[in-house]
Amino acid sequence: MSMKQKNEIVHDAEYYILEARHGEVWAAEDDELDARLEALRKKYGTPPNIVHIMWDDTAFGEVGIPHLQKTRGFETPNINRLAAEGIFFCRMYTEPSCTPSRAAVMTGRHAVRSGMYNVAFPYEYGGLDAEEVTMGTVLSSVGYATAFYGKWHLGDTEESYATNHGFDEALFTPYNQVPSIYTPAAENMGAITGMFPEMFPADPYDLDRGWEPRGYVWALEGRKEGTVREWGHPPDHEDYLKIDPECERRTLAFIRTNAKGGKPFYVAYWPQLASFAGFKEKQTVSRALLQEGLVRLDRFIGELRDELETLGIAENTLVVLMADNGPMVHNGPPGMVETIYRGGKSDYWEGGVRVAAFAWWPGMIAPGQIVGDMIHETDLFTTFARLGGALDHVPTDRIIDGVDQTSLLLNGDTFSRRDYNFIYTGPVLAATVKGRFKRVWVGESPGLTGAAFYDLYNDPREVQPKMLPLFPTKGMFNIMKARHEIWKQKYPDRKPARDFPLKGIENARPETLAASQIRVDLEKIPFDPREFIRNLPDWENIDVGWGAGEK
Amino acid sequence: MSMKQKNEIVHDAEYYILEARHGEVWAAEDDELDARLEALRKKYGTPPNIVHIMWDDTAFGEVGIPHLQKTRGFETPNINRLAAEGIFFCRMYTEPSCTPSRAAVMTGRHAVRSGMYNVAFPYEYGGLDAEEVTMGTVLSSVGYATAFYGKWHLGDTEESYATNHGFDEALFTPYNQVPSIYTPAAENMGAITGMFPEMFPADPYDLDRGWEPRGYVWALEGRKEGTVREWGHPPDHEDYLKIDPECERRTLAFIRTNAKGGKPFYVAYWPQLASFAGFKEKQTVSRALLQEGLVRLDRFIGELRDELETLGIAENTLVVLMADNGPMVHNGPPGMVETIYRGGKSDYWEGGVRVAAFAWWPGMIAPGQIVGDMIHETDLFTTFARLGGALDHVPTDRIIDGVDQTSLLLNGDTFSRRDYNFIYTGPVLAATVKGRFKRVWVGESPGLTGAAFYDLYNDPREVQPKMLPLFPTKGMFNIMKARHEIWKQKYPDRKPARDFPLKGIENARPETLAASQIRVDLEKIPFDPREFIRNLPDWENIDVGWGAGEK
Repeated sequence: MSMKQKNEIVHDAEYYILEARHGEVWAAEDDELDARLEALRKKYGTPPNIVHIMWDDTAFGEVGIPHLQKTRGFETPNINRLAAEGIFFCRMYTEPSCTPSRAAVMTGRHAVRSGMYNVAFPYEYGGLDAEEVTMGTVLSSVGYATAFYGKWHLGDTEESYATNHGFDEALFTPYNQVPSIYTPAAENMGAITGMFPEMFPADPYDLDRGWEPRGYVWALEGRKEGTVREWGHPPDHEDYLKIDPECERRTLAFIRTNAKGGKPFYVAYWPQLASFAGFKEKQTVSRALLQEGLVRLDRFIGELRDELETLGIAENTLVVLMADNGPMVHNGPPGMVETIYRGGKSDYWEGGVRVAAFAWWPGMIAPGQIVGDMIHETDLFTTFARLGGALDHVPTDRIIDGVDQTSLLLNGDTFSRRDYNFIYTGPVLAATVKGRFKRVWVGESPGLTGAAFYDLYNDPREVQPKMLPLFPTKGMFNIMKARHEIWKQKYPDRKPARDFPLKGIENARPETLAASQIRVDLEKIPFDPREFIRNLPDWENIDVGWGAGEK
Repeated sequence: MSMKQKNEIVHDAEYYILEARHGEVWAAEDDELDARLEALRKKYGTPPNIVHIMWDDTAFGEVGIPHLQKTRGFETPNINRLAAEGIFFCRMYTEPSCTPSRAAVMTGRHAVRSGMYNVAFPYEYGGLDAEEVTMGTVLSSVGYATAFYGKWHLGDTEESYATNHGFDEALFTPYNQVPSIYTPAAENMGAITGMFPEMFPADPYDLDRGWEPRGYVWALEGRKEGTVREWGHPPDHEDYLKIDPECERRTLAFIRTNAKGGKPFYVAYWPQLASFAGFKEKQTVSRALLQEGLVRLDRFIGELRDELETLGIAENTLVVLMADNGPMVHNGPPGMVETIYRGGKSDYWEGGVRVAAFAWWPGMIAPGQIVGDMIHETDLFTTFARLGGALDHVPTDRIIDGVDQTSLLLNGDTFSRRDYNFIYTGPVLAATVKGRFKRVWVGESPGLTGAAFYDLYNDPREVQPKMLPLFPTKGMFNIMKARHEIWKQKYPDRKPARDFPLKGIENARPETLAASQIRVDLEKIPFDPREFIRNLPDWENIDVGWGAGEK
């Protein structure tokens, strides 16, 4: 059985330039890779299992390098060991924030293409569109058991639920960790959300006490295409802290069940990692929120590894560990800091989009690899599909940014099929990367002033923009950008789905039910709020004109 | 024979606080360490050899961590291997620039104490005072063969020459690498030094054409307390590039001779590493100056290791590799950049004073150690003296900042005898460190405004100064500073030696000779230039009032 695709994936324009140069070599590589995958399949009777663990806001270098952890007062020995026994990616690019990054890796497409380029907060009336095809759906199509546990953060509209995107089972949080401060205890610490009016005297000037959101959930659980149930009891913070342990328990149980049943599986465990309200018992010298979360994740990684080895399936299981974007250096808690790269979450600087990432697959991925190649999170979509023999289920009516990186995984350093990246912040193309060079598009005035070109080997922090020595790249970057944008005329970006939130919950509480419904008397207002919600603008909190030269 | 000191070294005040707490434990450790050192001495017949390699401007993390080098387009496999087989120091502090750092490690004293706190440029009429006692002198006193090769940079006055500071033999550059651009070729590239007036039309307004410096040297060579000879032929840049290879050749020859002669040796090879005029043949993907120098040094480190192993003395030789200060991020060449710490050369931020540093001593230093302890470059002075059985030759009439770190070397992580550092920039105490906390003194207004406290675990880049949560450290830092400064009343800082440069050179060229002499007719001026030179102010290019709150 060939693992190669019979239909034709539509790639981004730049990929075709590389394929024209290297296509023959890649085809020969692919034959050899197919043979290795086929041999493995014969041995285990199934295509490889895939475990994808993705957590928040962790810079390149924050985990996996013991030397740097020594300077930071914490250690993650299990993650570091796994990194040392597999691939340590030095150049894994993601989108610069949570929702976009999760949408991108799930769909194999830059978030701008699905309209999921904003960080979704509660009550934003949107989510992943039903037309988007996720990794869950693709692998489900070829018989994989699929499960999602943890931070989904792709919207609270019913069509965006993980259970409606190809997962056999799911326990998922529709939001980020912000609801963890929607508690009376956090209110006492100064959160001032106003979500618990019973705690405060009434504001005598408040004309619209129904304006504040009240109905929200910690997490939802359910099975494929069924109704969902609320899990946990907001605002009970103790319950919030149980989400990760519960997801870990279910992840291991799911693995055990399918391993014993001889069914290939794909499980995404995307931990909350931390509640903004913190942990009561500190486990690090660092004492900081992110590091406290990382050491807890680390313990689980040790358990996961033990489980895979005990079940005898480690050599048929690809484990990918990674962060979703850079650290929250802007307005974030102590300990969320830059490592070697400038910037963090939300930035187009390397620090925003270059993250900690590792791959482990004993027997297939050689140990001890420190890989300098470029890889993008969307590549995981295409690569997982290839490994699962599911490339024929990747949709061909849209651009798939992910390229097949099976050769990089199995052949190692220098075998990447990507040397470019387009970095979006919200809907704005902020920077373009080609090899060692990077051009930042925003902040540039018409003409020459402010044009910023960087050499990432020699100016990794992007603080010494070069004009003269890097001008040879100017025309090349312009052409790349034009190709990328013109290709969009044929395959345009889409919009996210808009709807009232939190529909379809079996055990909905009254306030959750209220959130899913119109809260005013339609007879008394001259417009239809449902219409307004469906026509929210593409972007909400982004000033697309912030680059001085943007039109 | 006890390795412990019979006389009483005068430490900085803070050390006595630690000693009062830990003295008994340390004494017990010392007995055990003495026994191990004595056993080694019996085996080899001599105290251990010491090889100290110190080069320029290299941040913590730039070498020794392959993951970071992958992101930078170069690799130093020999240095990395040595680091992995010995101690990787995560917290080696130095002074923030070349001359101060070199003075500090040579004397075991913060540069401010010897007056050597400025970066010496050619024609600054100063150098290390004859009263300062160097590591060369201390180890020479107990029978070590001593040699210095490379960048000395401790002045061009005769009393500052390496040959007048305890080294049996030396090939040393009195200056930094700046003279490498004192060439006609560099002039053509735009250096505009004006040092080659024959290249330019005369300036019709120039009244004092003797003002520009002309006489300078690449390097001097000689033997202990003898005259010196100029080595190489400025402005021949090819000759400049031969300094490091010649120093490497002599280092290995010196090691061979003494190993075969059964004499313990101490050799300091402090490479130029790079000429500002660059190398013709590039060897790195990075293409940048520092990285090109590092890969050349790396090749030598491989040769050095081979030599020590071939001679059978590796297990009786401590090798310390380190940088002298942080990268030249201000006005430096491409590739001299921050890694994880903020700032670089000349800064009191961690990036200025926390450097790449490793120790290797097979059989005595356990392999694979990533050590988080604090150590200061001055500690090497005291530690080398302890290892050489030369503590009784450390002067006791002045403060020695270096503490004995033999226990850290031989027992490993957490065995440091230092948890504090006083960071000077020029003559200004700019910051004080205690454990994870750091207080910056400059930039603070009288009263509260601007007081900056940092938690280095959670804010390694020192960009989030904390007031409220770190105020408990305020009083403690004030007391530390007071102790440190009051102790100086008993043991005051000294001044550097002042004199005309480049005296005592056997083969002095006419322009070199001119530099060492008064160049005007004394009868025609109303003052004595010699007197003026001897009374140069303590600081030349430092504005001591730059901290807003400095008096």
